[in-house]
Amino acid sequence: MPQYDVITLGETMLRLSPPGMLRMEQAQSLDMHIGGTESNTAVGLARLGLHVCWISRLTDNPLGHYIAGTIAHHGVDTGHVIWTDEDRVGVYFIEPGKLPRGTRVTYDRANSAVSKMTSDDLPSELFHADGARLLHLTGITPAIGADAAAAAHHALKLAKDAGWMVSFDLNYRAKLWTPEGARAGCEPFMSAADVLFVPLGDARTVFDFEDEAETVLAALAEHYPQAVIIMTLGADGAIARAPGGYFHRQPAFPAEEVDRIGGGDAFSAGFLYGYLTAEGADRLAVALRWGAAVAALKYTIPGDLPLIERAEVEALVYGSGGTKLAR
Amino acid sequence: MPQYDVITLGETMLRLSPPGMLRMEQAQSLDMHIGGTESNTAVGLARLGLHVCWISRLTDNPLGHYIAGTIAHHGVDTGHVIWTDEDRVGVYFIEPGKLPRGTRVTYDRANSAVSKMTSDDLPSELFHADGARLLHLTGITPAIGADAAAAAHHALKLAKDAGWMVSFDLNYRAKLWTPEGARAGCEPFMSAADVLFVPLGDARTVFDFEDEAETVLAALAEHYPQAVIIMTLGADGAIARAPGGYFHRQPAFPAEEVDRIGGGDAFSAGFLYGYLTAEGADRLAVALRWGAAVAALKYTIPGDLPLIERAEVEALVYGSGGTKLAR
Amino acid sequence: MPQYDVITLGETMLRLSPPGMLRMEQAQSLDMHIGGTESNTAVGLARLGLHVCWISRLTDNPLGHYIAGTIAHHGVDTGHVIWTDEDRVGVYFIEPGKLPRGTRVTYDRANSAVSKMTSDDLPSELFHADGARLLHLTGITPAIGADAAAAAHHALKLAKDAGWMVSFDLNYRAKLWTPEGARAGCEPFMSAADVLFVPLGDARTVFDFEDEAETVLAALAEHYPQAVIIMTLGADGAIARAPGGYFHRQPAFPAEEVDRIGGGDAFSAGFLYGYLTAEGADRLAVALRWGAAVAALKYTIPGDLPLIERAEVEALVYGSGGTKLAR
Amino acid sequence: MPQYDVITLGETMLRLSPPGMLRMEQAQSLDMHIGGTESNTAVGLARLGLHVCWISRLTDNPLGHYIAGTIAHHGVDTGHVIWTDEDRVGVYFIEPGKLPRGTRVTYDRANSAVSKMTSDDLPSELFHADGARLLHLTGITPAIGADAAAAAHHALKLAKDAGWMVSFDLNYRAKLWTPEGARAGCEPFMSAADVLFVPLGDARTVFDFEDEAETVLAALAEHYPQAVIIMTLGADGAIARAPGGYFHRQPAFPAEEVDRIGGGDAFSAGFLYGYLTAEGADRLAVALRWGAAVAALKYTIPGDLPLIERAEVEALVYGSGGTKLAR
Amino acid sequence: MPQYDVITLGETMLRLSPPGMLRMEQAQSLDMHIGGTESNTAVGLARLGLHVCWISRLTDNPLGHYIAGTIAHHGVDTGHVIWTDEDRVGVYFIEPGKLPRGTRVTYDRANSAVSKMTSDDLPSELFHADGARLLHLTGITPAIGADAAAAAHHALKLAKDAGWMVSFDLNYRAKLWTPEGARAGCEPFMSAADVLFVPLGDARTVFDFEDEAETVLAALAEHYPQAVIIMTLGADGAIARAPGGYFHRQPAFPAEEVDRIGGGDAFSAGFLYGYLTAEGADRLAVALRWGAAVAALKYTIPGDLPLIERAEVEALVYGSGGTKLAR
Amino acid sequence: MPQYDVITLGETMLRLSPPGMLRMEQAQSLDMHIGGTESNTAVGLARLGLHVCWISRLTDNPLGHYIAGTIAHHGVDTGHVIWTDEDRVGVYFIEPGKLPRGTRVTYDRANSAVSKMTSDDLPSELFHADGARLLHLTGITPAIGADAAAAAHHALKLAKDAGWMVSFDLNYRAKLWTPEGARAGCEPFMSAADVLFVPLGDARTVFDFEDEAETVLAALAEHYPQAVIIMTLGADGAIARAPGGYFHRQPAFPAEEVDRIGGGDAFSAGFLYGYLTAEGADRLAVALRWGAAVAALKYTIPGDLPLIERAEVEALVYGSGGTKLAR
Repeated sequence: MPQYDVITLGETMLRLSPPGMLRMEQAQSLDMHIGGTESNTAVGLARLGLHVCWISRLTDNPLGHYIAGTIAHHGVDTGHVIWTDEDRVGVYFIEPGKLPRGTRVTYDRANSAVSKMTSDDLPSELFHADGARLLHLTGITPAIGADAAAAAHHALKLAKDAGWMVSFDLNYRAKLWTPEGARAGCEPFMSAADVLFVPLGDARTVFDFEDEAETVLAALAEHYPQAVIIMTLGADGAIARAPGGYFHRQPAFPAEEVDRIGGGDAFSAGFLYGYLTAEGADRLAVALRWGAAVAALKYTIPGDLPLIERAEVEALVYGSGGTKLAR
Repeated sequence: MPQYDVITLGETMLRLSPPGMLRMEQAQSLDMHIGGTESNTAVGLARLGLHVCWISRLTDNPLGHYIAGTIAHHGVDTGHVIWTDEDRVGVYFIEPGKLPRGTRVTYDRANSAVSKMTSDDLPSELFHADGARLLHLTGITPAIGADAAAAAHHALKLAKDAGWMVSFDLNYRAKLWTPEGARAGCEPFMSAADVLFVPLGDARTVFDFEDEAETVLAALAEHYPQAVIIMTLGADGAIARAPGGYFHRQPAFPAEEVDRIGGGDAFSAGFLYGYLTAEGADRLAVALRWGAAVAALKYTIPGDLPLIERAEVEALVYGSGGTKLAR
Repeated sequence: MPQYDVITLGETMLRLSPPGMLRMEQAQSLDMHIGGTESNTAVGLARLGLHVCWISRLTDNPLGHYIAGTIAHHGVDTGHVIWTDEDRVGVYFIEPGKLPRGTRVTYDRANSAVSKMTSDDLPSELFHADGARLLHLTGITPAIGADAAAAAHHALKLAKDAGWMVSFDLNYRAKLWTPEGARAGCEPFMSAADVLFVPLGDARTVFDFEDEAETVLAALAEHYPQAVIIMTLGADGAIARAPGGYFHRQPAFPAEEVDRIGGGDAFSAGFLYGYLTAEGADRLAVALRWGAAVAALKYTIPGDLPLIERAEVEALVYGSGGTKLAR
Repeated sequence: MPQYDVITLGETMLRLSPPGMLRMEQAQSLDMHIGGTESNTAVGLARLGLHVCWISRLTDNPLGHYIAGTIAHHGVDTGHVIWTDEDRVGVYFIEPGKLPRGTRVTYDRANSAVSKMTSDDLPSELFHADGARLLHLTGITPAIGADAAAAAHHALKLAKDAGWMVSFDLNYRAKLWTPEGARAGCEPFMSAADVLFVPLGDARTVFDFEDEAETVLAALAEHYPQAVIIMTLGADGAIARAPGGYFHRQPAFPAEEVDRIGGGDAFSAGFLYGYLTAEGADRLAVALRWGAAVAALKYTIPGDLPLIERAEVEALVYGSGGTKLAR
Repeated sequence: MPQYDVITLGETMLRLSPPGMLRMEQAQSLDMHIGGTESNTAVGLARLGLHVCWISRLTDNPLGHYIAGTIAHHGVDTGHVIWTDEDRVGVYFIEPGKLPRGTRVTYDRANSAVSKMTSDDLPSELFHADGARLLHLTGITPAIGADAAAAAHHALKLAKDAGWMVSFDLNYRAKLWTPEGARAGCEPFMSAADVLFVPLGDARTVFDFEDEAETVLAALAEHYPQAVIIMTLGADGAIARAPGGYFHRQPAFPAEEVDRIGGGDAFSAGFLYGYLTAEGADRLAVALRWGAAVAALKYTIPGDLPLIERAEVEALVYGSGGTKLAR
Repeated sequence: MPQYDVITLGETMLRLSPPGMLRMEQAQSLDMHIGGTESNTAVGLARLGLHVCWISRLTDNPLGHYIAGTIAHHGVDTGHVIWTDEDRVGVYFIEPGKLPRGTRVTYDRANSAVSKMTSDDLPSELFHADGARLLHLTGITPAIGADAAAAAHHALKLAKDAGWMVSFDLNYRAKLWTPEGARAGCEPFMSAADVLFVPLGDARTVFDFEDEAETVLAALAEHYPQAVIIMTLGADGAIARAPGGYFHRQPAFPAEEVDRIGGGDAFSAGFLYGYLTAEGADRLAVALRWGAAVAALKYTIPGDLPLIERAEVEALVYGSGGTKLAR
């Protein structure tokens, strides 16, 4: 049995936001959470029972330890985090808005320690056949800096060499790069991935599609025939295609929204859990259902992290019957 | 004029819950309220202007005094509470959830002081014709312990001997006993009650009915022909039958929900107020209307207690005209 | 270019309200904001980029300075506030309610410093042709005291003499005067105003109309043919008539309500901004659109003040195209 | 046995203060307590076990009910409060300071309902021999308005006629009257009182003494030979003289100060409890010791009210032995 | 190298306390921490860098997971906790007081899951030579229930058989047993311990000593000649005796107290860290110095847990020079 | 009369700190203030009544506006701030400690907008004889970046050319540069300054002095004979030397510390106010006394800003008599 089920690598930031519906300028205190797409997914996977390792580079100050401590609290192994006295911890400020006032996000992530993480920082001793079953990467890491991009590429190569599965979430961020940059920067990951998460909006922006979701998905499947491709559609749930053309549609579970941020990462956690655990013909369907369930629960939880209970997820997934996944 | 309009007897607990929509594991503080079905009803009745006495047994520590002080604050007489240095004060923890995350309740009420209250603890000097007009009991007291059950039976007997009316709320709690246990344990109270509150869900669980509400109510009315039976239907309001077959339906007043807990107890407070105050042919209809009004207002108030203002209730009850009840 | 775009005059109070949905009696702290119809409008105008002066009379204590400091924070000139050691600062307490529990407002504004402001307190040196473009008054100032009423009348006269435009918001407050009193008290202002804001409800109460909004507006236009009259209709937006019979209807922008108070004042700010800045045939339509946009954004912001960003307003106003107003 | 041990009469206000050590201008919320010298003392007496009635006049709004509800919570009878739709509830704002920044108090109490309380508002049916043992008044009531002063004088007369003891606390407030006014206004009360509380500072200000405490006390004893006179000396404790020249000195119990406000009222509560309960030669000494103990405990409790536990007071009073007072 | 440096076993409770200096009866929320003497020490040891395992039995509800999650957050292994659906999680309520108001603690720990932990619940697979270096027990475990006492005795036997060191902290709790009971119940542990922590106050209460600290320590050393005995003296620091008569005195480091609770457990953590890490003649002195440093830092940290940074401890320990312990 | 009394230039950051005495890792929210040595001084000067302009460069996001809005709230002119879409707003995190736990500060200020402010960003139109009376600079601006250093040098030259006074506060920050770097970098400012603030600790670190304060001051006076040199000594107050050898010592006013940060900047504000306002032989003594008074009051106020009231400062300054400064 491999040491970890999933290894992932990426940036996690402090998230600071005014309480209630106050504007930043009205606030005298900021609520503090942490957020990072890969660690969000890692926490979800760990809470579902998998063994997960999160790799990153953090500045050795109270902010860095806040992040690592919070991730470790939920059972993710943070023992391979690289600690440095240099650089800084990224921060992002959110001012949540209600219609017609939009949510405002102010990123302050330039020069973060992880953006300068190099290939040498990777724990290469883990990258062997028994090190893990799957490496999870996202399109944010290649976007935050040349060093980080090189490290992500190196991790990809090591994982493929070790025979692991690789999942990749496009996760386009307009503040980090252009669509062209993202297209070029993500291509190596998308071409190599076994599991590919592509939010419909990102697909449209990055690849300049204007078609319906199914058409876009089919086009992507042609480009990346090796991958199971999952396209999340927001309130409309998700659709997916597996190599060989198997197609499945999963509606979203109804949810009263408390905090939407991190919903996509929660979906990835649920999907990967199902995909790594289920077997047989309906593996893709099961995985999508787990993804939708974890995402729906996440929407009800303050903060980026999917602090779900496994029993809650199961209640959603198996609400209409079915065989439980072995734990 | 009797000393009290209503005497009631039962358990009240501390209620602790995380602020906002946080999970317990995210919380660093817990909001503190108190909750107990009988004291909730007692507070509602006292705020409407009746003279109410709440009997219980409490451990003489800051938690017990928190409970008694809060109840007395609203004008309920707590002078007959038995104070003891033994046992403990029950606590329950609520983690409110939004769809699809359910609300989680963790009861920690075993061995509470009131579960060991004996018949000797009852203030027997009150149980004479001029002591009160009505004794209100619920199905929780016989469920929490043999001593408490015996005390409740004894109180029932004393009240009947004194010629008081008796009201009883089935209030089934699956964590306290089985449907069979509840059926047996509540039978003596239901057979003796003049006013019987039976939530539809409880009726189905305890008496294994599968029919429509009206049918269930009719069946109950056959078993307990001596009682006015009120069946609360949640968002659908309530229906009731009086001896002689008089039937009435009361829709729920629209309400934006802030805190649902204690809504049924608030209904009982409103109903009993109307029933003890109104006269004439539409007594049942008036009482149901007061019940629905107090319940609707309760839904807008944080905590278990129906901290309603009489004028607010009247505005709902008489919104469409009618003669005010004498104060 | 005049020194100010808009000068306004009126009362501002501390606003204290329990946190969350607590009743006053449950609260151990009160959230503190400030509110006053004229300063609310002034803050909105200043945040949109106009030069605004707010005149008032305040007691020289920490409460008075809280009010002046908060208004100045948003760029409104408070240098002409009269400071006194006498009288008091008005306060109002709000207990927000959800259906069917109504919001309760307790005003404690009697004998406020501004209610005793006299004509002599006016900064007469400002009232010349180059002092300002518009004087904004509301029906509250003549209602709060004989001195304040006289000062408002004097300001009106000075402004007309100086050739400024005058806007007036009827803003009827049943706790301050009767409909008859309001009618008499406001007549001089309404007869002189160039811009007249009349909420439909106020029009019905004060002038005893029972007709549809358009009919009421037409009737008002007959009485006050000199004025652009804007009638706000709550969720139905606003309608307006300009001299010469030009009529326009502006629907409300959809908004998720966080705090409704101050929405009308925000509308006035947006309208006046548009009206003072736009030119040409669609000046009224543009002004109404700005009014509706600022009001919709205000509904999402806690407190009375329209703490909008100009860019947010523009996004609403120009969402469907159009030429931007020069800044 | 009389119906009440102590009846008292006076004004109670909302007390609002910024949290932590914030200045008013930094605050976004204010902590809410209540404070009034007579109700502070009443609450202390009730918590020690006496039967106490607090008479006042309050505006029938959420603020008035906040005050009455809080006082009643601690067992004081508020059933004789006069409720009115007129006037207002007094408020005071405290900005606590640390050396060298002084504590700033902003009173906003003019035109409070109680300042307009008349002799007719007094519950004259209580003023008979069995109505109470002692009437407690303070120098604030005659200072807040002519009506209130007349009511206080009338209460004094009724109490003397009924044969009750009378206690009076000089409690000089420079913002309410001049030393000369206070001297004249308080003279009838001081001449009639059986128990007279005179803080040393007040004695110096009002009577223009410059001497040592003992000399001042002796001089007062000459003027008011009928009274037990207690002079509180702050950190130096208190001294007292009984008719006949009996003198006693009570040092202060060491206390770490959390909230100093209400310490004098707490002293009065403790003293009056001891004085009404103790017997024999050391009655004065016992009463002073109870006064000092309640005051010391009060200093550790946030808010004006002496929320002491009787057992805590006894632990201080009897720490060095002695016979317990009968409960 | 053994798997763990230290294994410990015991009860941990939720700790709930009113914010600020409020009394329980004033509070509307309670701050939530966790506290348990053994887990406090475990957290301190883990933060200093040792491998620590905490064994307990917890009810599988949100309270139990709150406790385990918090302990694991700091790096302590909680993988051997026994989870049960029965029993309950202990809670204790603290109302912190300032002089002369004492701190009030209300324990609600009866029937906790750990009080019913049996010998069979112990992870016997760990108790071999390479399982750990030291087992840490306290006098609370044998006091909370017969089952827990038996489990503690069994753990002691297993540890001695495996050749581990054993440390024991007397930690007398008057609410759990009598001095006689404690003496008898702790004797087997004290006779077997290699390291014995005995607070001076506990020694006096349990063993009825009246002498000076040194004399008491000498007497204990005669009874328990096999053990290093550390006697903590509060503000006076600590003294210790090693077998062979070596005596050392360690003054307390000056500390401004924020939260005193858990100071003794922090001392144990520091001592054990030093004792397990240091070598040579001054091992006892070094260990005492680490103990005093961790305790002093703990006093400045809210909650029971010694959330110290290793570098802070080192700064205190090596402030006056000396060789650093290897990490 | 010049347009401004004082113009200053520098960096201001968000300041975020955990509430109470919590460690960062325990916090779920951070209190938000702003802090910057020059704006702290500017706010103090403006609150004392001077006309002050603060120049800086800020990123145009909610954080930048938070800073500028807060500074403007207190009457400082922020109209010459340069707004940019680039770079970032500096942040610093403070975890306040109590003995022996030190206060931990984590600076995150690299690449702030102001560090890239160039000479061209200076509002050169202000730098003429009637632009201001004094330019205030500190040693932080030349340390944060080459651009900012050049801008500060340029401002110095412009101010000298315009005939203004210049004050300079050494304000050494070890995290920004070495003592050698600071010595070289500050030399041009110190050689040109008319008023020189040198904290004793900074003098020792930067200039490697080991002598008593007076000796150090004398040595500095020899190097910078043109300047009035003020050496702050913490709890020991301050000493100063004027050209010509005039020496004065000012003890610190006793203060109970709430928040020490910004005390030195408050001192500078008070000193400069006195120095710019007083005349005659005791000008230096008066200025020192104002400096000490403002600093003492600052210690009692949460946050970096000296939110003093002029009357409070006067009460301290003139407590022992003296002639008031003209306003």
